[in-house]
Amino acid sequence: MSQFGYRGKGLEFLTSNKIAIGSQVKIHADSVYSGVIMPRYEHSDDHHIVLKLKSGYNIGLELDKIKKIEMEAAPVIKKETTYNSQSNSKLPKILLLSTGGTIASRIDYRTGAVTPALTAAELNASVPELATIANIDTEVLFSEYSENLLPHHWIEIAEKLDSYSRSEYDGIIVAHGTDTMQYTASALAFSLAGFPKPIALVGSQRSSDRPSSDAALNLIAATIFLTEIHSSGIFVIMHNSSNDDEIACNWATRVRKNHTSRRDAFKTIGGPPAYIVKSKSIEKDRMFNVPEKEYMPRIKFDDHVLLLKYYPGLDSKIIEYAIDSGYRGIIIEGTGLGHVGKTMYESIEKAKKNGLFVGMTSQCIDGMVRMTVYDSGRDLLNLGVMPLGNMIPETALVKTMWALANSENSDEMTKLMKENIALEFSD
Amino acid sequence: MSQFGYRGKGLEFLTSNKIAIGSQVKIHADSVYSGVIMPRYEHSDDHHIVLKLKSGYNIGLELDKIKKIEMEAAPVIKKETTYNSQSNSKLPKILLLSTGGTIASRIDYRTGAVTPALTAAELNASVPELATIANIDTEVLFSEYSENLLPHHWIEIAEKLDSYSRSEYDGIIVAHGTDTMQYTASALAFSLAGFPKPIALVGSQRSSDRPSSDAALNLIAATIFLTEIHSSGIFVIMHNSSNDDEIACNWATRVRKNHTSRRDAFKTIGGPPAYIVKSKSIEKDRMFNVPEKEYMPRIKFDDHVLLLKYYPGLDSKIIEYAIDSGYRGIIIEGTGLGHVGKTMYESIEKAKKNGLFVGMTSQCIDGMVRMTVYDSGRDLLNLGVMPLGNMIPETALVKTMWALANSENSDEMTKLMKENIALEFSD
Repeated sequence: MSQFGYRGKGLEFLTSNKIAIGSQVKIHADSVYSGVIMPRYEHSDDHHIVLKLKSGYNIGLELDKIKKIEMEAAPVIKKETTYNSQSNSKLPKILLLSTGGTIASRIDYRTGAVTPALTAAELNASVPELATIANIDTEVLFSEYSENLLPHHWIEIAEKLDSYSRSEYDGIIVAHGTDTMQYTASALAFSLAGFPKPIALVGSQRSSDRPSSDAALNLIAATIFLTEIHSSGIFVIMHNSSNDDEIACNWATRVRKNHTSRRDAFKTIGGPPAYIVKSKSIEKDRMFNVPEKEYMPRIKFDDHVLLLKYYPGLDSKIIEYAIDSGYRGIIIEGTGLGHVGKTMYESIEKAKKNGLFVGMTSQCIDGMVRMTVYDSGRDLLNLGVMPLGNMIPETALVKTMWALANSENSDEMTKLMKENIALEFSD
Repeated sequence: MSQFGYRGKGLEFLTSNKIAIGSQVKIHADSVYSGVIMPRYEHSDDHHIVLKLKSGYNIGLELDKIKKIEMEAAPVIKKETTYNSQSNSKLPKILLLSTGGTIASRIDYRTGAVTPALTAAELNASVPELATIANIDTEVLFSEYSENLLPHHWIEIAEKLDSYSRSEYDGIIVAHGTDTMQYTASALAFSLAGFPKPIALVGSQRSSDRPSSDAALNLIAATIFLTEIHSSGIFVIMHNSSNDDEIACNWATRVRKNHTSRRDAFKTIGGPPAYIVKSKSIEKDRMFNVPEKEYMPRIKFDDHVLLLKYYPGLDSKIIEYAIDSGYRGIIIEGTGLGHVGKTMYESIEKAKKNGLFVGMTSQCIDGMVRMTVYDSGRDLLNLGVMPLGNMIPETALVKTMWALANSENSDEMTKLMKENIALEFSD
């Protein structure tokens, strides 16, 4: 038997002391710690309890070293969340969908490794502040690290979201791993363009049960944001700086994970984040002019698209491999303003003759593909390569998968690629 | 007949007015302009002359609109550069090798397009300030935009540099296109590790004859830097900010072109630039600890290496294509801390069984590959994938090409990959 992940000695310790999860306690061990008892996860050991300190850090305390535990206050959570039938009907309603990822994962204290296990309900319960902002319903779609997500997962998420397009929720949070969050965000931005409610993809760089986790603050900021903006749009909501002062709400198609581990890894490319949630205000950026669309879900993707980064020495035969293997599109990450070496021209020409879409982005990531400046660019334009402006490569890849699946012929497909659907072109 | 690119009416205008290239003149046209007459390029039209204003901007003036031209001072260049036998023997000696690129290119005023044409000597002549800092000899290796450079060009550059390793030059400038400058820089850093003189790769984002060109300042800063540091190393020297206050000297293996067009496009990843040249000083960064190597040129590359960026939906068959096509290494740009989806595992295992080197970098670019944190990373480690720390993907690609060509077997190759040769690992 286990309760919120506690079992064996850990569960016995809590029950014998009549301490519920979410209680505010004072623990005397090597030092004195005040904080809230946090949930643990299915496969945790049974000789630690986890305490969320007032600083926001979580610590694991070994049972054997605890001299005394004092109850300071009963769990807030019991009074105000949806776990209780007395949910506050005056609060806005938010749906929290969990797909897995670090935000919904636990750390294994024996190995230091992290695996995905936490459900949306546990996630919600582990951030008691959420219940004071909104009534949050929770639902688990699946539990995967985002590096394992595939286009069929994008479809699953989009279809679930579509089923809530006319619901009573003020907004929807999608808890998601950070590794491929930007790809999913773009996939939702294209397939659900014009969705009538705001959607926030929220991840964390450190798991919820770890000291210095960014999960709680990202979730709190997303909840505040969704209940207050009264506007639609699809956003990636993560720390804006390495401290806890600012949370950035980035447009789905313009965001990139630019650091492996920092809490502020996600950056809007080519401008500021759409909104910044601060402790007392939400600041709106006015730089980007977001296209307005009527809601028309087009939830299909064709993954026969190759993302090809050009480099000196790249063998052009890989393009012929793509043609022969039935790929329907190639997004090139060219150099500089959108170039590849001359050795690639013949194969690109062949790809075009075989009906493949070939789009050009830049491996510089920031800036604008401009193929009229140099000979190389003009040569590629003449071969039929489409310059993709300041669309970031990962977004261009997802858009190509989407446009191929949602068009009848190459004219329609090209038209979709040129249309600014979800701020993938920002100028 | 043409002279410094002037021909027909343009040449006639200059000769009839007894104006030499490099002369300080005052021109009365729609307004009055003071500046230095600049060289033009072979295929320029014959009805403009180009003037470098005191602000540093170059303008093209139409002959028909020129009312009067007054000579203010004879060309400085005739007195102090190596074009004159009276070069100042007290000045340090610098070699300027040109390989092409925007820094050595001209703008076609009819189409607005840019093509590579300027020789090293013309480049030197177009920046008269250089002659007051050093005696500069010039040599053209080839004249290519850098998107067309291949590993055999790296070899050509490295062998040329090697031939000057015991020369009297204080340092060597390699004028280079910016598109693949970071790849060449890494190639030189590995193949010429321990080179006894400082080498500066210098490019520009706007061609030398264009208003707001960054060519002159980058060249001047590189010349100052090479003559003053009295230390070795291979650097990429470009603007550090969008104004002209600071020029950054970036370590060859840690630099990346992060913007398609900004003058400060090049950024050191994971720390500050090695040095910053300011108007009155050179500031040295102390963060990076550069490995010291004895000079032992190893100028070989094997381009059978695939740089593969992982994304949701990537078909793992591409790895089998690489195996079947005789590739010897794969550098993966994984997600986050160094992951790929489970669907890739089987093919990666097959690549390892077939003796391919498989290295992991991150598409986040900044940060550190750490494959012990999550299941996904540990699974990949077990398959034999080598984590490459904070080596940036493009550097890892070049290093793999180099290590494969300069080792006898996979143990030696792996050893080279793990060794910090040229600050490719910075922690």
